[in-house]
Amino acid sequence: MEFDRRQFAALVLGTAASLTLAAPATAQSDPLPSWNDGPAKEAIVKFVQATTDAASLNFVPLAERIATFDQDGTLWVEHPIYTQVVYCFDRVPAVVKEKPELANEEPFKTVLSGDREAIGKLSMDDLLKIVGATLTGMDVDTFRDEVTAWIAAARDPRWKRPFTDLTYLPQIELLKYLRANGFKTYIVTGGGQDFVRVYSERVYGIPPEQVIGSIGGVSYQYDKDGRPVLIKEPKLLLNDDNAGKPEGIHIEIGRRPYLAFGNSTGDRQMLEYTKAGVGPRLAMLVLHDDAAREYAYGPARGLPDTKIGRFPQELDDEATKDGWFVVSMKNDWRRIFAFE
Amino acid sequence: MEFDRRQFAALVLGTAASLTLAAPATAQSDPLPSWNDGPAKEAIVKFVQATTDAASLNFVPLAERIATFDQDGTLWVEHPIYTQVVYCFDRVPAVVKEKPELANEEPFKTVLSGDREAIGKLSMDDLLKIVGATLTGMDVDTFRDEVTAWIAAARDPRWKRPFTDLTYLPQIELLKYLRANGFKTYIVTGGGQDFVRVYSERVYGIPPEQVIGSIGGVSYQYDKDGRPVLIKEPKLLLNDDNAGKPEGIHIEIGRRPYLAFGNSTGDRQMLEYTKAGVGPRLAMLVLHDDAAREYAYGPARGLPDTKIGRFPQELDDEATKDGWFVVSMKNDWRRIFAFE
Repeated sequence: MEFDRRQFAALVLGTAASLTLAAPATAQSDPLPSWNDGPAKEAIVKFVQATTDAASLNFVPLAERIATFDQDGTLWVEHPIYTQVVYCFDRVPAVVKEKPELANEEPFKTVLSGDREAIGKLSMDDLLKIVGATLTGMDVDTFRDEVTAWIAAARDPRWKRPFTDLTYLPQIELLKYLRANGFKTYIVTGGGQDFVRVYSERVYGIPPEQVIGSIGGVSYQYDKDGRPVLIKEPKLLLNDDNAGKPEGIHIEIGRRPYLAFGNSTGDRQMLEYTKAGVGPRLAMLVLHDDAAREYAYGPARGLPDTKIGRFPQELDDEATKDGWFVVSMKNDWRRIFAFE
Repeated sequence: MEFDRRQFAALVLGTAASLTLAAPATAQSDPLPSWNDGPAKEAIVKFVQATTDAASLNFVPLAERIATFDQDGTLWVEHPIYTQVVYCFDRVPAVVKEKPELANEEPFKTVLSGDREAIGKLSMDDLLKIVGATLTGMDVDTFRDEVTAWIAAARDPRWKRPFTDLTYLPQIELLKYLRANGFKTYIVTGGGQDFVRVYSERVYGIPPEQVIGSIGGVSYQYDKDGRPVLIKEPKLLLNDDNAGKPEGIHIEIGRRPYLAFGNSTGDRQMLEYTKAGVGPRLAMLVLHDDAAREYAYGPARGLPDTKIGRFPQELDDEATKDGWFVVSMKNDWRRIFAFE
């Protein structure tokens, strides 16, 4: 009797599994419908097939399947300015309300003036002062609540939509495709990891513990009621950009990725480090060459130069030399946003 | 037709799920056979049942099920001295071979002398010098290979077995039981995370990315062949002990645990932070009160005082006040080691 029930269960599980798993496995169903056919899409599909086929020389054990993605410019729009910087500017009035003496101090005075031209000319030191004042000093739960409220209310100036709508649909499909094939997907961002962790699970399906970013110190304290709190300190433990990306990957994962996806010079070392591993490694860069549907910036390939998300000729040359794929937004992505 | 197939699949999946999941749920099969019946075991089973029962007021969504475990004294033996410190001492001859000038410098001279009494009197500053010299300066892959070789060859002085045999069987069962119920299990250790990550998957079933420990800085460099490497630097980013434990949990997970397990004052803040969360939270401490089968140390409850793994009266008092369970090794653990 027990044996029969088990046999039945095995039969039934087999049948059910083939029904439910049929969709991603069949050739007919395309896991990346927002990608145009071309070398980039082909490379992704071949990479996934090779690393997950136990009979392949390039098979990668399940536990080692790590894929890392930059966020700004790789998973969502980074122009005209990083979303987290918009958050910092928006928080300035609340900070000044708590510390009124800042109203007459630079750079807070300029931000409060609303003078876009003057704000655009603020130095990196000024920006760091604003970041320090707006992202630290509160406990981590309060910070999470503030970001949650802001991200629900704030709107991008061009599309008049929540910033979280401005994620790239081809990349959301790629994240899902990788996870369906046993890859653990990570964000590795120059932004603050506490900020991105607030919405990463909802927007990208990536849980907080798989978000690596710039790390601010926290200190364990007791509040006035004796309850333990973690206070965000103005102390940078890791600047998770450029060389900081492979460093952050080692600190928080401890394994080398098999796939890394970026879009600018800040991602160079992460891609180098990924490709330097033994076995099959895939490195990709988004090229923003579509001013009509998103933005166009380089300065490689004659595209305009901008401060944010630079893709210079040296990066293009290193991609060619080291075998990284450059993904043209214009040619490789059939559709960019889910709301289109 | 499509509708019928889906109905069939749902029916079949439901049946299959109840059949395959029956084993861990039945009262007959004990998921914790090395635990004696008592308040601690009862608390664990009730905690797991409540947090995983969707109908329970204490249900915890799958993604939020985080459990954190100290390592030394909680998952494996920490006496007479932490395993990682033994590694550092054993590495001194190799370090001196590369830098012969150290042979006549303290504390290296004392370590090389083999004089146990003198070694036992080394100051914390001396120990930090040894740690700095033996755990830094090489690339992370070389370090991993060295620890892998050492951990296979080294033997504990009392049981004459590999240190990795000295894990507590009741805790290995608990880790598996939690994972079978959807919990992500983490190690949160004062030891270096690069060290523990070498063997954590094999020994505890915990992958490197779920090991949080003291964090040493790494720097991204190119070796003489132009290949990127990560060099371990003598720079401590986080001392993952005491208040550093909740800080490290926030940095590398970004969520508060539902279960935390420690054994000494170094785990106090992790347990406080865990219990301060809303909803069902379980905090536990191992009390080493079994000199015959392992070791006995306090100084609480009249046990001998030692430098390593202190369990003083204040900790016992806080456990009582804050509702932490104190697990008596002597009474709560039927069997301590798998090799017994």
